[in-house]
Amino acid sequence: MKLRDIASLVNGEVTGPPEADNLEITGVSGISSAREGDITFLSSERYRKYLPACTASCILVRKPIEGLRMAQLMVSNPQLAFAKLLGHFYIEPVKPLGISEHAIVSDKAIIGKDVSIFPFSYISDNVSVGNGTIIYPHVFIGQDTVIGEDCVIHSNVTLREKVKIGSRVIVHPGSVIGSDGFGYVFDEGKHHKIPQVGGVIVEDDVEIGSNVSIDRATTGNTTIGAGTKIDNLVQIAHNVTIGRNSLIIAQVGIAGSTEIGDYVTLGGQVGIVDHVRIESGTMIGAQSGVAGNLIKGIYSGSPVMPHRDWLKAQAVFARLPELHKKIRELEEKIKELERRDQPA
Amino acid sequence: MKLRDIASLVNGEVTGPPEADNLEITGVSGISSAREGDITFLSSERYRKYLPACTASCILVRKPIEGLRMAQLMVSNPQLAFAKLLGHFYIEPVKPLGISEHAIVSDKAIIGKDVSIFPFSYISDNVSVGNGTIIYPHVFIGQDTVIGEDCVIHSNVTLREKVKIGSRVIVHPGSVIGSDGFGYVFDEGKHHKIPQVGGVIVEDDVEIGSNVSIDRATTGNTTIGAGTKIDNLVQIAHNVTIGRNSLIIAQVGIAGSTEIGDYVTLGGQVGIVDHVRIESGTMIGAQSGVAGNLIKGIYSGSPVMPHRDWLKAQAVFARLPELHKKIRELEEKIKELERRDQPA
Amino acid sequence: MKLRDIASLVNGEVTGPPEADNLEITGVSGISSAREGDITFLSSERYRKYLPACTASCILVRKPIEGLRMAQLMVSNPQLAFAKLLGHFYIEPVKPLGISEHAIVSDKAIIGKDVSIFPFSYISDNVSVGNGTIIYPHVFIGQDTVIGEDCVIHSNVTLREKVKIGSRVIVHPGSVIGSDGFGYVFDEGKHHKIPQVGGVIVEDDVEIGSNVSIDRATTGNTTIGAGTKIDNLVQIAHNVTIGRNSLIIAQVGIAGSTEIGDYVTLGGQVGIVDHVRIESGTMIGAQSGVAGNLIKGIYSGSPVMPHRDWLKAQAVFARLPELHKKIRELEEKIKELERRDQPA
Repeated sequence: MKLRDIASLVNGEVTGPPEADNLEITGVSGISSAREGDITFLSSERYRKYLPACTASCILVRKPIEGLRMAQLMVSNPQLAFAKLLGHFYIEPVKPLGISEHAIVSDKAIIGKDVSIFPFSYISDNVSVGNGTIIYPHVFIGQDTVIGEDCVIHSNVTLREKVKIGSRVIVHPGSVIGSDGFGYVFDEGKHHKIPQVGGVIVEDDVEIGSNVSIDRATTGNTTIGAGTKIDNLVQIAHNVTIGRNSLIIAQVGIAGSTEIGDYVTLGGQVGIVDHVRIESGTMIGAQSGVAGNLIKGIYSGSPVMPHRDWLKAQAVFARLPELHKKIRELEEKIKELERRDQPA
Repeated sequence: MKLRDIASLVNGEVTGPPEADNLEITGVSGISSAREGDITFLSSERYRKYLPACTASCILVRKPIEGLRMAQLMVSNPQLAFAKLLGHFYIEPVKPLGISEHAIVSDKAIIGKDVSIFPFSYISDNVSVGNGTIIYPHVFIGQDTVIGEDCVIHSNVTLREKVKIGSRVIVHPGSVIGSDGFGYVFDEGKHHKIPQVGGVIVEDDVEIGSNVSIDRATTGNTTIGAGTKIDNLVQIAHNVTIGRNSLIIAQVGIAGSTEIGDYVTLGGQVGIVDHVRIESGTMIGAQSGVAGNLIKGIYSGSPVMPHRDWLKAQAVFARLPELHKKIRELEEKIKELERRDQPA
Repeated sequence: MKLRDIASLVNGEVTGPPEADNLEITGVSGISSAREGDITFLSSERYRKYLPACTASCILVRKPIEGLRMAQLMVSNPQLAFAKLLGHFYIEPVKPLGISEHAIVSDKAIIGKDVSIFPFSYISDNVSVGNGTIIYPHVFIGQDTVIGEDCVIHSNVTLREKVKIGSRVIVHPGSVIGSDGFGYVFDEGKHHKIPQVGGVIVEDDVEIGSNVSIDRATTGNTTIGAGTKIDNLVQIAHNVTIGRNSLIIAQVGIAGSTEIGDYVTLGGQVGIVDHVRIESGTMIGAQSGVAGNLIKGIYSGSPVMPHRDWLKAQAVFARLPELHKKIRELEEKIKELERRDQPA
């Protein structure tokens, strides 16, 4: 594909050596592994060091970088252009496979057009699968569960009964949606199970990583808002509500009935207690612990505090042994001063 | 169902508007989503705010709440009554399906009465499955594994060889019981695998969440005591022993050979090192880290300290920058005092 | 098996009661559960207390332990000898099962000799499976994925497309290799997916625990070096590189593009941010958080600091309330001194 055609695809402008427009682009690659024929992109400033030795034919940039020999393609959002080109070069259009004879699909299930249902998947009564959806092998779908259009449900996924999945949702392998919430009543020395009879709603354009656990509600629904993206190994407890377009990084745990707003970012391994509310737009640093409601802001620490305060407190933490010593010295000096101060 | 019949089911007493006994109850729901016809329950004090607008027909209470228009049903444990009613209204009795012709069950396996074995499950030689147990699709059960009566083994679960599961045990989707413990000997620059030839014992009435990992013992057994409940994404290493009726919240990790007593509660994301002992009745706060034996108590922090001490230390932590400044001021003042104190 | 034959198997020397060479050894067991006929081993100094009451017939030791009645078998590495004997006594040689008629194996897949492919596994086009490899039930293997010789792929594992697995690799149940990395571009209020078109390389002799998530690279490869061992529920993001013979303990999370050297040990629940580099030989304590590059050393804390410094700072942390009080007392004393110091 000629660079000029790529420029037109991503709405960009070519600069660089003469005849750059005519360059043949054969692949898309990250800066550290790009080779001749590739178009590349600086995903992190830390990678600028790879530029001098990089033999890629072209780089996506917002503004031209001085002193580069390779062609440059100026676009308003280089990462977005990079994503578009990856899709263009490497993602083959889906050819629907239909329903495998080795799958088990209930007569009472409603299956849309152009679906692919792989062998060894099991689809229960009254399930609905929308047009264009792909269901890989070893997927279990429980009764009355509804899946929208153009979804991808990867292998070994479990969607239990009464789960509602929107359209263009991706669920990566090994994830579980609709397992029972962790609810017990303690009585006479034992934990008695509280039946978990609610459901789960996953709205449009949600992506759920691998080995994620999302529990069904006790009553009502656990809800994941449209456009929210969930990384691997995340725990979402019963009756949690997550808003739209939030990012939940790997290994986060959110306890029961907690409400997360829109455009919230939870860093890796963050833990949030039950029954609290995190306002839209909040960002929480990796490994933080949240034990109460949070208004919009940037937070870190376990328990969390405003990120700037945490940075300052953490800086002093590292110097605690030194401060401790200083306090002992001050004590000595004061004792000395007090002694001198005594009337003779 | 008439409220009077519900009262008799949960051993409660109706108060409220005249004719309340005759109210028709058609559902059970949490306070924020309950509607007319529902019986509800205040699961958290934080939800009291929903009471005025709640249109439920009846609420389960320990003592009457003043000023409510809806009927009230007094019981000794409202949450227990709520659990009972959820089961009564929403859980259908199990109709055993028998053994699917699409499952593979060894001729040498012993299968009880009234079992349900779904398609695509695989049951190895010498496995025993007790009466009334349900095995969902895509379950793998290894040789010599024994499962008791009335268990539910959800989809995509792996129970490897020589695992013993008691009765009334529930295992949620994606969990793995009996994977090899993480044991190696370092010799001549390499990690050599220590064969993990022990087993796992899961006693009666245990519930195990989704995507949980419980490793088999090196020799002997990893043991989960009767009535213990384990949440999602928990890691239990080889040779761990957990007592009876403990609660292990999501994403906890317990390292090898550690012993946890009875009625222990481990908060979410707690980590416990290997070869330590946690006494019965101990409670450990979320995200805490345990590096040594613990006598009965309430603990928090990483590493843990008694919870009260941790609260106090944590309160000072937030003020460290301020304390740091104060120490510098004190230093200045003392220098000034020392200067003045010098003989002229 | 006579003790003298065991001695010759592990290259050891028998001491102890007369005729010890002739003892019949019938099993191998840990110190707390060993019985007559067993050979045992002290896996932890904490277990020395079990020695007096232990009825094992023989113990593996580096140097003779005084005052023991049981026979002793001196070897240069008792744990290594223990591992060897466990394998010798309990691990049966594999009998290849061939390809189950209940598995689905593409005509375009290349399957080696002496393989075992269990029922309900699904092997896509252009997959290659090396000699002697075992694939348990419910395994999904995507297109173009290559698996070496003598691997064990446990049940419910997903290996997506274009994954390269070396030889003698073990993957425990429920793990996922090759799921999409967590990559999005934010534009006009939405997160747009960056196609993840790279692969994963898992080199020889790697062991991967249960319910582990290893994401494929955006472009290029996520790489796990030869001999590295990964425990359960670990998260490895796209484009991460792990060197050789490292140990990654349970529930660790490693963010995108981070590079881990050789012989690195990451304690349980450690979190590491994206785009950093951890030098070979580094050890990081459980629950630590890494936010920048690390040169070889031992680290703890979140964020990490050198382990010794962390121990000292943590010791002062516990005493913060006391220090706080002391600072207030010092302030009072200084005020008093200042007052006295005022000219009358």
